[in-house]
Amino acid sequence: MAGFERIDDLQTGGLQIIQDTRAFCFGLDAVLLSDFAKHAPSSITLDLCSGNGIVPLLLAAKTKTPRIVGLEIQNKAVQLARRSVDLNGLQSRIEIMCGDVKDAHRIFGPASFDAVTCNPPYISSGDGLINLAEAKAIARHEILCTLEDVITVTAEILRPRGRFFVVYRPERLVDLLTLMRQYRLEPKRLRFVHPFVNKSANLVLVEGVRGGGRELRMLPPLYVYEQDGSYTDEIYEIYGWEGR
Amino acid sequence: MAGFERIDDLQTGGLQIIQDTRAFCFGLDAVLLSDFAKHAPSSITLDLCSGNGIVPLLLAAKTKTPRIVGLEIQNKAVQLARRSVDLNGLQSRIEIMCGDVKDAHRIFGPASFDAVTCNPPYISSGDGLINLAEAKAIARHEILCTLEDVITVTAEILRPRGRFFVVYRPERLVDLLTLMRQYRLEPKRLRFVHPFVNKSANLVLVEGVRGGGRELRMLPPLYVYEQDGSYTDEIYEIYGWEGR
Repeated sequence: MAGFERIDDLQTGGLQIIQDTRAFCFGLDAVLLSDFAKHAPSSITLDLCSGNGIVPLLLAAKTKTPRIVGLEIQNKAVQLARRSVDLNGLQSRIEIMCGDVKDAHRIFGPASFDAVTCNPPYISSGDGLINLAEAKAIARHEILCTLEDVITVTAEILRPRGRFFVVYRPERLVDLLTLMRQYRLEPKRLRFVHPFVNKSANLVLVEGVRGGGRELRMLPPLYVYEQDGSYTDEIYEIYGWEGR
Repeated sequence: MAGFERIDDLQTGGLQIIQDTRAFCFGLDAVLLSDFAKHAPSSITLDLCSGNGIVPLLLAAKTKTPRIVGLEIQNKAVQLARRSVDLNGLQSRIEIMCGDVKDAHRIFGPASFDAVTCNPPYISSGDGLINLAEAKAIARHEILCTLEDVITVTAEILRPRGRFFVVYRPERLVDLLTLMRQYRLEPKRLRFVHPFVNKSANLVLVEGVRGGGRELRMLPPLYVYEQDGSYTDEIYEIYGWEGR
């Protein structure tokens, strides 16, 4: 194992993940996304912009979904993700593929998934400073794919009534909701994540249904920290920590 | 004064309002809307779907705006609103007009207001049971005007960079945000109102800017009640109650 790698225990059914500390390690957004998506029965789920495979790994632990595919464009992340799949003995359920989101409909064909998850880059191309570490920049900025790429492709590869689960930044909520409606991935459930009770939301989780009717259900807010800086009970539950 | 009327003290600079208890009395939404809109400097503000004039009355108390126009289609509500304006001696600042939202651009002409406020009917035409009291039904359901009517007209009568303030129901958030973007009233500030800390939002306040750039700022949530059922400090401040 290379010097910049480490193995983290995911505290969920004994799962472990290999991460490269120079690249983009998984964050709370990926953990919340997999938890948000776990309620949907699915025989085959695709995770777009899959990075080091954190979402497929957690979905394998949290659901009975027999087949989970992760698509990631950066070859080094793909290699790490595949090794994590092997390390956890999940080769029969998870496949990690190297490829471009923009080609996903050509790779998989139309209407081929029951559910699609995505933690897309959230900084508009052109906005903000590009992180010097290229791998991190690709994960955070719309360099290799835009939100519209993710949504147009998802609208094709989801079966009718299939579900799209996305975690995003509230600053771009209008972009997200208008694109989802435009491509008929109608937003049906929405949950904001707030660091503290009295702070603005800094993440938003949205579930869309391909061809769904127009009615949005707001879920109660999810708070990450108590006033004293400890995690809330709900975050402990989502992380699956037992020995706290 | 007729038997179904009552005068309520608005607890704000000695303001009073005349209400007809058979029709639609003002609620928390109108109070929150006027508070949300008060920070915008405006030389002339229009309140659409103005009802008994609660929003113009509160804006007169909370801002220095020299001219506030209320437009309301129901003649009985217009008569009540005008009497409230007289009762408070606000004839020089508030004018209540009887007319249809859909005609507002013809009545006032393009780019004629710095700010527009609206607490529109929020139940889609065709959805839900129509309240037997016709006045209440018109205030709540999209019978005489739809959300799209309000937004198309506002986009015409606001000056460029003018601000639109709206209170609405989160179930229709996607409709609201997509229509605002479509008609170039770009959503810039968004605040959810929750009855309790751990409950879903049941109101949403949005500020749009005509021709504004794409960046949304989420405000911290507004909670109405403490766990014991008493109002939160922020609600007391917004209502302006001193002697609690």
